[in-house]
Amino acid sequence: MPYRYLLLSLLLSLLAHRGLADDGYRLWLKYDQLPDAGQRKVALRNTRFIAVPTNASATLQAAARELQTGLQGLLGQAVPVGGEARGKGGIVLAVAPDPALGREGYRVAVQDGNIRISAATDVGVLYGSFALLRHVQTGQPLAGVSLSSQPKIQYRLLNHWDNPNGTVERGYAGSSIWKWQELPEVLDPRYQDYARANASIGINGAVLNNVNASPRLLTAEYLRKVAALANVMRPYGIRVYLSVFWAAPKVLGGLPTADPLDPQVQRWWTAKINEIYQAVPDFGGFVVKANSEGEPGPQDYGRTHADGANMLAEALGQHDGIVMWRAFVYKAGPNGDRFKQAYEEFQPLDGQFDPKVLVQVKNGPIDFQSREPFHPLFGKMPRTPLVLEVQLTQEYLGFATHLVYLGPLIKECLEADTYAKGPGSTVAKVVDGSLEQHRISGIAGVANIGSDRNWTGHPVGQANWYAFGRLAWDYTLTAKAIAQEWTQMTLTRDPAAVPTIVQLLDQSRSIYVRYTTPLGLHHIMGQTLHYGPEPWLAKSARPDWTAVYYHRADAEGLGFDRTAQGSNALSLYYPPVQQQWGTMATCPLNYLLWFHHVPWDYKLSTGRTLWNELTTRYYTGADSVQWMQKQWAQVQPAVDPALHADVTARLRVQQREALWWRDACVLYFQTVARRPLPPGLPPPTRTLADIKEQVDTYQLR
Amino acid sequence: MPYRYLLLSLLLSLLAHRGLADDGYRLWLKYDQLPDAGQRKVALRNTRFIAVPTNASATLQAAARELQTGLQGLLGQAVPVGGEARGKGGIVLAVAPDPALGREGYRVAVQDGNIRISAATDVGVLYGSFALLRHVQTGQPLAGVSLSSQPKIQYRLLNHWDNPNGTVERGYAGSSIWKWQELPEVLDPRYQDYARANASIGINGAVLNNVNASPRLLTAEYLRKVAALANVMRPYGIRVYLSVFWAAPKVLGGLPTADPLDPQVQRWWTAKINEIYQAVPDFGGFVVKANSEGEPGPQDYGRTHADGANMLAEALGQHDGIVMWRAFVYKAGPNGDRFKQAYEEFQPLDGQFDPKVLVQVKNGPIDFQSREPFHPLFGKMPRTPLVLEVQLTQEYLGFATHLVYLGPLIKECLEADTYAKGPGSTVAKVVDGSLEQHRISGIAGVANIGSDRNWTGHPVGQANWYAFGRLAWDYTLTAKAIAQEWTQMTLTRDPAAVPTIVQLLDQSRSIYVRYTTPLGLHHIMGQTLHYGPEPWLAKSARPDWTAVYYHRADAEGLGFDRTAQGSNALSLYYPPVQQQWGTMATCPLNYLLWFHHVPWDYKLSTGRTLWNELTTRYYTGADSVQWMQKQWAQVQPAVDPALHADVTARLRVQQREALWWRDACVLYFQTVARRPLPPGLPPPTRTLADIKEQVDTYQLR
Repeated sequence: MPYRYLLLSLLLSLLAHRGLADDGYRLWLKYDQLPDAGQRKVALRNTRFIAVPTNASATLQAAARELQTGLQGLLGQAVPVGGEARGKGGIVLAVAPDPALGREGYRVAVQDGNIRISAATDVGVLYGSFALLRHVQTGQPLAGVSLSSQPKIQYRLLNHWDNPNGTVERGYAGSSIWKWQELPEVLDPRYQDYARANASIGINGAVLNNVNASPRLLTAEYLRKVAALANVMRPYGIRVYLSVFWAAPKVLGGLPTADPLDPQVQRWWTAKINEIYQAVPDFGGFVVKANSEGEPGPQDYGRTHADGANMLAEALGQHDGIVMWRAFVYKAGPNGDRFKQAYEEFQPLDGQFDPKVLVQVKNGPIDFQSREPFHPLFGKMPRTPLVLEVQLTQEYLGFATHLVYLGPLIKECLEADTYAKGPGSTVAKVVDGSLEQHRISGIAGVANIGSDRNWTGHPVGQANWYAFGRLAWDYTLTAKAIAQEWTQMTLTRDPAAVPTIVQLLDQSRSIYVRYTTPLGLHHIMGQTLHYGPEPWLAKSARPDWTAVYYHRADAEGLGFDRTAQGSNALSLYYPPVQQQWGTMATCPLNYLLWFHHVPWDYKLSTGRTLWNELTTRYYTGADSVQWMQKQWAQVQPAVDPALHADVTARLRVQQREALWWRDACVLYFQTVARRPLPPGLPPPTRTLADIKEQVDTYQLR
Repeated sequence: MPYRYLLLSLLLSLLAHRGLADDGYRLWLKYDQLPDAGQRKVALRNTRFIAVPTNASATLQAAARELQTGLQGLLGQAVPVGGEARGKGGIVLAVAPDPALGREGYRVAVQDGNIRISAATDVGVLYGSFALLRHVQTGQPLAGVSLSSQPKIQYRLLNHWDNPNGTVERGYAGSSIWKWQELPEVLDPRYQDYARANASIGINGAVLNNVNASPRLLTAEYLRKVAALANVMRPYGIRVYLSVFWAAPKVLGGLPTADPLDPQVQRWWTAKINEIYQAVPDFGGFVVKANSEGEPGPQDYGRTHADGANMLAEALGQHDGIVMWRAFVYKAGPNGDRFKQAYEEFQPLDGQFDPKVLVQVKNGPIDFQSREPFHPLFGKMPRTPLVLEVQLTQEYLGFATHLVYLGPLIKECLEADTYAKGPGSTVAKVVDGSLEQHRISGIAGVANIGSDRNWTGHPVGQANWYAFGRLAWDYTLTAKAIAQEWTQMTLTRDPAAVPTIVQLLDQSRSIYVRYTTPLGLHHIMGQTLHYGPEPWLAKSARPDWTAVYYHRADAEGLGFDRTAQGSNALSLYYPPVQQQWGTMATCPLNYLLWFHHVPWDYKLSTGRTLWNELTTRYYTGADSVQWMQKQWAQVQPAVDPALHADVTARLRVQQREALWWRDACVLYFQTVARRPLPPGLPPPTRTLADIKEQVDTYQLR
């Protein structure tokens, strides 16, 4: 057989039998060949070699390896790696002091005829290498390349809500990627690919286990496993962290108490922490969920959250670790307001925390709803660094079947103005520490990552992981620009398809809000699973787990009055915010029902009554999913067929479920509002009883 | 760029960037090119075309597609598919009446210069096509090919213990492969590959959900999802079945009772079953776990298992479905014997079951231990067809980290002689119905399949899925022959490596028994998870969940006396079995402690005392894992590097855990036996307290 037929046959057989449809595993690090031969040719002239210092660290080696793999894929030709620059037209990796770049920043610039990637540290060079690859992947020219960036926030972490039994709390992409049973011996190649993906977007830490923490992770048995994961991640600049089960000194140490002021307890933690650092010398620290949703905590012993956090911080001693203490606590009775609980418990503690402690605050006051006003603690704890916690797994945003790009949601929170020090005191400036000159700063994304081949279940879920990393690094990037980068790197470089997809992504979250919780409705989803609509839910183990607690629909109107006439949660904000949100007339429609009980016939700024606006939004929201389907259908020729078919099928689920939400909410609220649908909106063809039966299905064991 | 360089570069870039290490996804359907060019050439002369009738059914199309894909991969050249034979030297698929073959049998023979794959049904042709592919895959010549086979057992089913929330009970390979949340719209390509793999080994049914069943599966919402899966599997001859939650008429139907003799309940089931067949016209039927481990059942209403099973059978009416009623029930007090419970509840019901009912019996009387005597019900319910249930997921056999090939375990049970009708009345003949001329027969394997890329976690776990299917089709195959087929199709065709691997597989289960439960010990594993050793376990919610209940170690000796002096469970067997197993002298050592409380100093047929034999086996068992490691190391050049590395790492876990088992059991039993280790066995270097702490780790939440 002639040589070229042999090759062709090999190629065909590989394509046919290796399942080369794009299965999403490679994420945005696809490195498929650039289609423009001219562009490749120019790029090849600038990438003749990669020079990395001899005896380079594992991190620099990872950078060189990634550049080599990436460029070979993108440009279709192998690039040699060597110890020294071989003349001009190559890439030089250089670690050199540069105070302007900070510890993690990088500079990519042409110098002496080579592209020089420099930074003060090895990991900075790694970040610069990924930046250069992104530059090429998004089709930008290498000639005269000049990139420079440093992160605005110091601790950029994923929080994995993964349990030792392999399940993921609120995970919709298979099981945990951590195979605890097989560790430390079996190192799934996925661990390294996880680290590569994170490093490529600047994520520098991973909290491995669920905040509802198992004490197992702190045992010698599991620390060996944790150490094995840390070893894989270390070259990529990623430190591992653990969530802590507060009662560990009792359960593991056999002590009679877990009181943070008890010297035995303190000694136990000091010894345990020393043991951890023995196994993982660059261990990052702890996340703690204490006295929240049934978890034990310092309040069990009459101590405060600050007592607990400070004890751990003290036990960390000279180790370079931090404590992230979660503010997600609530226990509101029927007459209270869950909105205020975290504020009331934590705000008075401002100033009492050890310098190693950060308080971790969710973006909004309730729980990762599709839209929330920013959490009132932002700006109100000036002496405490606050970690912003956002949720990438779509617990309340359609699991892995609804296409919802979260870039706009995260940006909305970061750009919100707290007015803590006058206009421009954005949540971003609170979080990055610049508003109060904090020494440390952090941001955390609750991961949407699982063992599914494509990592996130919904292929577009990858964009949320990506957007979180990019915004954690630089929150001044726009959600749209990030969507464009991700699309070009992951889905297609087709110049017509890219803007179509970016528009789809950019609108997707607004559309989701419209067909599920328009105008500031919140927490009306199905109980337990948090799946589908259940606005009629009136009974639960706790009143603040029902839906009626939040929407307060009655004959008069709809919404939770949080003004001074109501729960007065509004008073937790600075006066300019209170003023804007405090009256129905000036409150943005997106937050209206968060703060006001609005009469059904109240005329909104749209010219429609509340009832008509509400129902119209449910209808137009559901209709918009059809628009999404059309947009996606348009780009079919430009996207891998398997991947396109997958998203197409998921959009069909989304369309079905959007109608489910619409019909459930319209029919239910109609039983209270007792008003006809506005003209032109066709009434649902099913009954509320039918829908309830369907919702109840998902409550069955 | 010249054409051939373009191809080469494409090829290299595919290899480099698509992760073409063998990730195990293709199972034994790898179809990699045969290495011998001469052999390929000859084969190509016999596979010039594939002729399939025009307007062929989906099943025949699947057969043609599989042959085309397989032969192209194996022989490196495309084979055209057409409506008619184009002369000689091709493959002809033909459906033609042939009473000798039964409904599912096939014949592959040379006729008129073509290879003719014929059967009485389309699915028979599909099975024949896979048989021909296996023939080529295992390197056998096509010239004069002549294959013919038909299944000995009618219902060959996988039982998935998968829950609607995506978890798999006793699953060690990720989450469920059924993505309920995404169904029916999203059809994971994996569903079809699952069906292909099953069809290739003759499995013709899948019970989709856990025997601890969720009522969700019976709702209209979920039946749409079930139907979507059934549609994917139908062309591959696979019918879907469901596990039933007995109280469904109450939970879903709102009835006050689930009493099988209540006419309302009967009407509810009749209507529900009609609804199921509306959605899935070839629905297979039900598996029921009732009045077992807390599940509801007919006994809640004073009715028998037969009452329950018969009601369902009656409700099936004219539909071609069956009821598989599980005999796994037990509730033994401290003075009873769990061994006898299923027998005592079910044996008296023999003759009372509807002809559509089969009773599903585990291979042994306790619960999927590493070695059990055959279940005493086999041979004792002559008027009832019995389904043999074996467990492929390694709940008690090392999860997904121990290499344990189950072919020998399944064979051991099938070949056991019940003596029901004199010598030669094997379990196999009970199960295939030939002993009593039953109209229907069945076998079920509890699947070890999950969402892990390689399906089974441990790459060699695939061999257990494979062996189950092959034995279900033809239990006269030897475990070794099946291991060889699987190895050649899955791991390597290297003539030196194959026997090395086959030997490793063949020995693996005996070795596992040795280092965990030698001489007939059973049920001494860690509680709850069933992971690791816990022979000291003396307290649990039920006495028959402890370890001491089973091993009965005391100052005198070890083992459960099930002779007439003890629980007399032996009396459940036919006299020849009783005689052989009833005395210490004649009882096979493998079953010794199942039936006898043996004095520590009793001299066994090996010449050693019980204590010395027991401890020696623990030591030699653990040592044998090193032998396994050496065998595996030897075949390294012949096996895909990623796959080889994966198994190597898992063997390291196995080695560590074998020592864990050895030390735990030797040290614990020594506290009771109070005897020194035999000379030459080095005492464990850790204490029992250390080991207990490690075991306790796995009991933590």
